[in-house]
Amino acid sequence: MAELIPGPSFFIGKGDDTDLISFGSGQPDLPPPPEAFDALKQYNGFKYGQIQGEESLRAKLAEEYPGAKPEHFVITNGASEAIDLVLRSISKSGGKILLPRPYYYSYPFVVGYAGMTAEYYDLGEGGKINYEQFADIAPGCRAVLINSPSNPTGTVQDIETLKKVEALCDRLGLYIISDEVYKDLIYDRENYLLHGKHVVTVNSFSKTYAMCGFRVGYLYSPDEDLVSKVVEMKNHTSMNTSVAAQVMALAALSVPASYVEKHVKIWKERRDMIYAGMLELGLELWKPEGAFYVLPKLKNSGRVVSDLYYKYRMISYDGAWFGAPDHVRFSYALDASKIQEGLRRLKKFLETDYRAY
Amino acid sequence: MAELIPGPSFFIGKGDDTDLISFGSGQPDLPPPPEAFDALKQYNGFKYGQIQGEESLRAKLAEEYPGAKPEHFVITNGASEAIDLVLRSISKSGGKILLPRPYYYSYPFVVGYAGMTAEYYDLGEGGKINYEQFADIAPGCRAVLINSPSNPTGTVQDIETLKKVEALCDRLGLYIISDEVYKDLIYDRENYLLHGKHVVTVNSFSKTYAMCGFRVGYLYSPDEDLVSKVVEMKNHTSMNTSVAAQVMALAALSVPASYVEKHVKIWKERRDMIYAGMLELGLELWKPEGAFYVLPKLKNSGRVVSDLYYKYRMISYDGAWFGAPDHVRFSYALDASKIQEGLRRLKKFLETDYRAY
Repeated sequence: MAELIPGPSFFIGKGDDTDLISFGSGQPDLPPPPEAFDALKQYNGFKYGQIQGEESLRAKLAEEYPGAKPEHFVITNGASEAIDLVLRSISKSGGKILLPRPYYYSYPFVVGYAGMTAEYYDLGEGGKINYEQFADIAPGCRAVLINSPSNPTGTVQDIETLKKVEALCDRLGLYIISDEVYKDLIYDRENYLLHGKHVVTVNSFSKTYAMCGFRVGYLYSPDEDLVSKVVEMKNHTSMNTSVAAQVMALAALSVPASYVEKHVKIWKERRDMIYAGMLELGLELWKPEGAFYVLPKLKNSGRVVSDLYYKYRMISYDGAWFGAPDHVRFSYALDASKIQEGLRRLKKFLETDYRAY
Repeated sequence: MAELIPGPSFFIGKGDDTDLISFGSGQPDLPPPPEAFDALKQYNGFKYGQIQGEESLRAKLAEEYPGAKPEHFVITNGASEAIDLVLRSISKSGGKILLPRPYYYSYPFVVGYAGMTAEYYDLGEGGKINYEQFADIAPGCRAVLINSPSNPTGTVQDIETLKKVEALCDRLGLYIISDEVYKDLIYDRENYLLHGKHVVTVNSFSKTYAMCGFRVGYLYSPDEDLVSKVVEMKNHTSMNTSVAAQVMALAALSVPASYVEKHVKIWKERRDMIYAGMLELGLELWKPEGAFYVLPKLKNSGRVVSDLYYKYRMISYDGAWFGAPDHVRFSYALDASKIQEGLRRLKKFLETDYRAY
């Protein structure tokens, strides 16, 4: 039997071979708007930028958030750095951070790196928050993390539930870290922006504008004390986010809405294709309402991922990495023809190797 | 009296007015090699890169370090992130990190953020390491930090001392974090690269190639265990360094040595000008051997910095921010005519306001 694969980083840089089909890394295959590259061609600055992020970019972002001001934003090296900086800034010895489960695989690590402890609320049927359970655990925590649409489930949380979460955290004085990096990739309704004095919205240009490699994300919060702590920390830990990436981000924000709409239409077609295809293979899974992941149940998920890679030339991610053992995550951010070929290989795997597990 | 200025970040983004003279931020005013911008114009990638950094860039860097392999490098968001990641990766509760004093102002912060405590060795006459004192304190520490050439003193440590530091740390099994971001800006000899099993060399494209704003630095260490810890952590805290910045860095590495040599010649002329000018004003200061800073003694340094800014339109940094109260740091990374005008204003300040302190 092939060796178990230790984690997502094993696959980074793989997936460009012609015969390998990658349902692995969650990144768009469709390119960024050409305007983003064009802006780079004319750029000739080279000095340090503001630690908080370029004023022009923050001003443009503020237009997207009702009531927001440029000083409520910090531009970061992707959403990852935003979450890391927020956790480090609010860190208290013995502090607990409430995470959803399944979770994006980095959450437990960054909570630990910040010297705090992760607690979990389990997502129920369809990946929805069980509010009763959530409300039971939240009071002992320093912050709660909400991730809607979710990586790895694709679930979009109900607005009614999100409003209850807002009210509870406001009453308890808890920070809400709302990871909304997939906010523009929702199929059936608009995103609901969580509000509140201590809400930190984390977002990114990676998914909406296909700019993963450039690493530009941001946080938005009306909590000015928290924002200033984050900026002070970033001054020592990484300084300004790359000015080249910020130039691209500003250009991306200026493209017509049709750029994103076209992409969402494509994601939705792929979602329908992979969801129907997996149902047809007899797999049990939730129908994603946003982002670009499905998370079917598959026993011995570590072995599945290993076999799919070594025997079927397919990259998939073990649900165990996301707190969902016996599930496998498939990103459908790839061409329809590859999705179809992947489903064919998966069918063969299910009919042969998997039966023998 | 004008308010005291709280720290370096107060000045970020200031200094482009025509009448304001900035001896503040330590960044080259001379531009990066045109090849770096040209490389960007042709770039059309957008996907995640390797967390550790682009293979091509690491391979090119390995050529610069005798015996190094590409897998010994991690490309980071500037030297700042490299130091932050190393400290977090080696963090142990109660761990002590030995820092030089005067120090680069971020060091004590990042040690604290990593949950450890800073100890200090005081730099002696000329900014040189007092090895006896160093050897007394080092044994209780987890790592020592060496910064040669130094920010803020401009001192280049003697090779003999550096070899003793190497031998001691090797014997004690201590990490050496060697911040060599000014290694290419030494006026009188080649840099001495610290060696050892647990030496981490931190470097950057910011100073050598005038690429501060793009944020690309790196660490090099033959300690493969440490490198893999850093990469694992970076996977969760920021992912790959911006691919655009790495493309520029690779192009910069390929330019002829004359690019750097020309710059060093200019820094040296400016060093001579500001050093002679300050001596003429009667100030007491060490002669810098590298980097682009002078650190003259000036009593009430906080008030000096405030008065110079508000009354004389000059940016300077309070030595207290660097652990050197009653000193003021002047970066001479600016045009000779501005240095001359700055010296004129400083003369006026010394003859009027300063006399009344």
